This record gives sequence, structure tokens and C-alpha cells, in this order.
Amino acid sequence: MREVAIIGVGLHNWGELWDDSLRDMFVTAATNAINDSGVDHIDSMYIGCMSGGLFAAQEHLASLCADYLGATPIPATRVESACASGGVAMRMGWMEVASGLSDIVLVSGVEKMTDITGDEATFALSTAADTEYEGYQGVTFPGLYAMMARAHMAKYGTTIEQLSQVSVKNHANGALNPHAQYPFAVTLETVMNSTPVADPLRLLHCSPITDGAAAVILAPVELAKTKYKNHPMVVIKGSGHATDTIALHSRDDFTVIKAAEIAGKKAYEMAGKKPEDIDMAEVHDCFSIAEVMATEALGFFEPGQGGPAALRGDTALDGSMPINTSGGLKSKGHPVGATGVAQVIELTSQLRGDAGKRQLKDPKVGLAQNMGGSGGSSVVHILEKR
Amino acid sequence: MREVAIIGVGLHNWGELWDDSLRDMFVTAATNAINDSGVDHIDSMYIGCMSGGLFAAQEHLASLCADYLGATPIPATRVESACASGGVAMRMGWMEVASGLSDIVLVSGVEKMTDITGDEATFALSTAADTEYEGYQGVTFPGLYAMMARAHMAKYGTTIEQLSQVSVKNHANGALNPHAQYPFAVTLETVMNSTPVADPLRLLHCSPITDGAAAVILAPVELAKTKYKNHPMVVIKGSGHATDTIALHSRDDFTVIKAAEIAGKKAYEMAGKKPEDIDMAEVHDCFSIAEVMATEALGFFEPGQGGPAALRGDTALDGSMPINTSGGLKSKGHPVGATGVAQVIELTSQLRGDAGKRQLKDPKVGLAQNMGGSGGSSVVHILEKR
Repeated sequence: MREVAIIGVGLHNWGELWDDSLRDMFVTAATNAINDSGVDHIDSMYIGCMSGGLFAAQEHLASLCADYLGATPIPATRVESACASGGVAMRMGWMEVASGLSDIVLVSGVEKMTDITGDEATFALSTAADTEYEGYQGVTFPGLYAMMARAHMAKYGTTIEQLSQVSVKNHANGALNPHAQYPFAVTLETVMNSTPVADPLRLLHCSPITDGAAAVILAPVELAKTKYKNHPMVVIKGSGHATDTIALHSRDDFTVIKAAEIAGKKAYEMAGKKPEDIDMAEVHDCFSIAEVMATEALGFFEPGQGGPAALRGDTALDGSMPINTSGGLKSKGHPVGATGVAQVIELTSQLRGDAGKRQLKDPKVGLAQNMGGSGGSSVVHILEKR
Repeated sequence: MREVAIIGVGLHNWGELWDDSLRDMFVTAATNAINDSGVDHIDSMYIGCMSGGLFAAQEHLASLCADYLGATPIPATRVESACASGGVAMRMGWMEVASGLSDIVLVSGVEKMTDITGDEATFALSTAADTEYEGYQGVTFPGLYAMMARAHMAKYGTTIEQLSQVSVKNHANGALNPHAQYPFAVTLETVMNSTPVADPLRLLHCSPITDGAAAVILAPVELAKTKYKNHPMVVIKGSGHATDTIALHSRDDFTVIKAAEIAGKKAYEMAGKKPEDIDMAEVHDCFSIAEVMATEALGFFEPGQGGPAALRGDTALDGSMPINTSGGLKSKGHPVGATGVAQVIELTSQLRGDAGKRQLKDPKVGLAQNMGGSGGSSVVHILEKR
């Protein structure tokens, strides 16, 4: 299989965007990525989207997006794995270029979440869990992650201060990101005193509901070297994808996200890297506890040490292992289908040296971890600057 | 890229199945395919499903299906392209095996459509069209295909007798298929006098709403030759995928399904075949007019000759170009996400010589054409017996 490079990135601004439809957001992000790359055509495209049907009464996004981008009749494929839809789209695009089937592939993610009520959005999101055995019993995602947080606290002594510091750090990073939905800093006290949602989780431990889109352009490294030289070369070194039980209650242990652990192992193996080779990571902090568990599952910290590491500042911009330099889902926003693609965009910006006020000092290797549901699926990509 | 063989096929019976949930149907079809193939593991899986969200309040099918099959933690990906979801799943599975990333891949399609009301199902299906510019104006799929039928009649003189004969032929074939939802013959008179739905289309020109699932197992030909020898070898020789405008009104011409034409050309080119090399085809007869247009788009008949050919009996089991030997979507049923996979199963059964009472005489090459919406996407696969 061929090595694959990321030669263009593009975003539509994220937020509660009542003037922008799903198709508008997709087209802006895709056009920005195309312009950033300098390609004059695309061969194929992927769209990650969790629920066009429930959020926007629109399925068949492959046709809609190819149509409104003016890209018909190229093949277009929409993929879904709940909040990991963008990560799965990345993997499919990587596979198509790596296989030799296509040279220039657009990978995008989009979600239009705010055209329905909050209750309806909560219901739509709940379909990422086991509807029959979880949703119909009344549990929604804050409840599921609250149970994971309680289990983690009981087993490892993880504290609410530690979880709160994750939100403080992500908002501090997001305040430096012009694309963030909530680009402002918050204090530990504000987080810890915010409205309770599902004990022990409070409002500022939870990622928001967001409209947004993200897109990247992929090409084989050999072609990128000779033809698409707008930017420093960023290569996808590893891709890992794994599943776990959809229902939380079917798992042996609530304190580890096995799908993230296994997807990470596969990505490390393909990339020939170890956790200590990673300079930065974007992980799926749909809730603060998820970031803690992801940093443990990916081997950055020992089990139970993710919380203390966050409180010590190890995961801050100037820490030993910067996590979610973009602001993460918490501050940057979480348009579910777009998130996995935007994670890769943040790593690419950092590796190119384009990350502005939140730029790390010369990072070489980054990791993106995207997750569906309460960890029923996870996708990990490892990127390297060449 | 490697050549890919179909080494196992499996179905869950189709119909209005109030006792079988989405996960049950998937597991039956997948287990049947696994047993048919003789594999002792799978490396990865794809699930084609149009709208788990709107039909069954269940997204994240990748995790659900991997979980209930007992297949976690393997990578699983759900793909969607409206009624072409199954065809896209086939293409993704083919690509994964062809690329060398995986050896044994399960490709499935599933749709649970009858747990909601008919009105709700009509709405869910309408999201395969352009919701903002078609759905919100009140048009649904019978209306869109009625307009295509009218245009075809006006341009080519296609008659209602010709369209009705398509339904008569498909029901005659379906009567020989133990897996069909409506396994009985109908007369031309019955079809022509059935309840009007959207003029000129009547009830028996329309495919039904169906619960069902289908699955196949793919492997590289080299591995199939040495290890999985349960059945005569069936090889995927060509794969084509194309998009068109999602809205019917955006097209220059309502009488041709361009996405099917282009997907067909790509599949023919990859396979090194021409329309005259094809011994049989399963095409997407969501409405009778769609079968006529598909047989023209794929080059089996000249434009405008699809209707007369059907009326002459050219597309019957004993005709020169048998179309929809399975009974097609009309008689076999149309669980939208499963249809594209089931088309490939019918071709495989025919190529193996396993098609029972509807078996053709020693077919060598078959073509499957699956379609999303009013032709906004289409996928074509060409299979050959080796």
C-alpha cells in the first residue's frame, strides 16, 4: 500500500449557525481544503456524518455533497460511526489512496445539530448508544459518561478537580483558536460550580452541541512530493480502528476504553511508533472523563494517572504531553461527524507550524483519537512531518 | 490491487417481520454467510444501511453489529448512500480486500422499515431526495419516478403495458424465489388495474417496504483458491460508483440515469467487459420505470428500447438478457440498505448454479446495479465465474 499525505485542510467556522445549512457548511470546508491544497480535481470523496436523518432530515449526503460541490459524477461515500464518523471517513480516504484506487481524495465531516430542539438533539445523540437496552431505559450520554467517571473515581481516586482541570486547559487552548465555538478561558472554580448535568459531571465537563464542517485533501506521498508543494509534508503513518460493545453495561470494566486502546495499538504498530514518540494528541473529550481515559488508553499515562497528569499541567500547551491544543471538543465544539476530521486538521496545522498563538515548538509526530458512543468504536491516526 | 472473490453468502428472510429486530436480522444474515464460506474469523466488516436513525432510532450500527455478531474488536464501518447503501458497502469491502489491508471481510446490508408507520416510512425514504428543495415541497419518490416515467413516455413512446410487464416478469421470477417477500405471480391486467399511486405509476409498479438483511464474505482470490473451496469460485471483476445531482429538477434529462451509466462504464472498463458479455443482471427496480431506464443506461438496450424489450420478453428468465431473476425489488422486497448486497447474492447463486427453480443455464458473467434516490448515486459490480 502507498504512503498517504495530507495536502490540504479546510474548515467552516463552528457554532450555532442558523444561517448556514448542512450543504453550505460542507461546501465551505471542502472548498477551503481544495484551495489550500492546490489540486485542480478530486477523484473521490468521503463524508463523515452521524445522523443527517435525525438532525437535518437529510440522508444521501454522498449525492448532496458531490452535487453542491460541483463534483458529480465522482464516487462519494458517506460513512457513520456515531461521533467517530469523521475518523472513519479519514480511514476510508486513507485506504482508497493507499490502495492505489484513487490519487486525490477529499475527506470531510459535517453535522448540522442546532436546527432541532435540545431535547431532539439529545434523542438523536442517544441513538449512538444501544437504543433498545440503553436509550429506551432513559439513559443519555451524560449519564453514561457519569457512570464511567464514578467508576474511574472509585477505582483510581480520580477527583472532580482533576476532571475540571481538563476543561480549564481545553478552554485555555480554545481561547487561542479562532475557529473555536467557545474561545474563552474558564477558571477551575467556574467549572466546578457550573450546573450539575449528571453527577459528578457538570455543564463545563460536557462538550457542546455544534454546527460545523471540516475537510482535508489526501494524495499519495510520491505525488505530493512532485506536484502539491504548498505546505510542509504531513504523512499519515498509522491508522487503527476498533469496536467494542455498544452498551456500556456489556463491558467488564467501565474505567478503560478498550476500543481506543486497541485502535491505538494498531496505529502505533503500523506507524512503527510508541506512545513516547508522540509529541501531541487530539483526543475525544466529549466529556472531561473521556479525555482522561483516552490519555490512559493510548499509553500516554498509566491507568489512573490521567487525572493527576491533567491537574499537574502535563497535558497543557507547555506540558510534557500537550493534549487537545485545538481546545478539544469542549471549547472548539463538537459537530459530531466533523470532529474526527478537525482533529486531523489541528495536528496538520501544528506539524506545518500554522497553529498561530497555540503553536507548539516544532512538533514532529501527532496522534488523533476519535470515538463513537460510550466507546463502541474508536479510530486512531498517527501523523508525521517529513 | 488484488482480485477479490465472494466465498460466502447469507440472507435473513425478508418481509414485514415484527418479531425480528435490526440486530437479529443482521446476525442471521451474517452468520449464514460465515457458515456458507467456512471462514473461522473475519478481519473487518461493512454495514450498508440507509437510515437506522429514522427507521429504527439506532445509529452507530458498526458497533451494534460487531457487538451482536460477537466480532468486536474488529473494525466495522457503516456506509450510507440511500437505497445504494448495500452497493457502496460491497465496494468498500472489495476495496479493503483488494488493497491488501484485510483478507476476510464481511459485507452486509440491513434495514428495519416496518416498525414505524407508512407515513413515517415515506418521510424517512424522502430524505434520500433533496429535503430542502424536493421533500419540503411535498414530492416523494413515487412522484419523482412518475415524472421520470412521464418524460420517458413522452420522449420514447414507452407505454404503461411495457412498464407493467416489468412487474409481471419480476413477480414471475420472485414466485420461484423462496426468499422473496411477495413470491406470487401477477397478471398484466392486475398490474394495470392496481391502485393509482402517482400517475402513471400504480401500486404494482412500486417496490414494497421491507425488513431484511443480506451478507457476503469476501477474500482474495489467491486465498480462496487454496483455502475456501466450498463453492465454485465467483470473482468481482469490476466495480463502478458514480454520483449525480440529488434533485431531479437539476438534471438536463429525466429519461436517463446518468449515475448508472457512468458507474456501468467504469465497471465494464475495470472488468474488461462490454454489455454484450453480460449474461444476466440484477438492476434497481424500485419502480418499474427504473428497471427500464437501468437496462438502457447499462447498454443492454438502446435508449427508448428498454420498454419494448421488456414487453417482448427479452428480460424474462428465458429471454436473451434475463433481468432480476431474483424477482427484483418489486417481488423480492426492498429493505433499502440490504438490496445492493442481495443483488450480489442472487448473481453469486446463479453463477454457482444454486438458484433452484429460477436457475439460468450456465451463466458466466453477471452485473448488479444499485441506485440511491432518483439516481443521485449508483454502484455497479460485475461478477464472473471462474
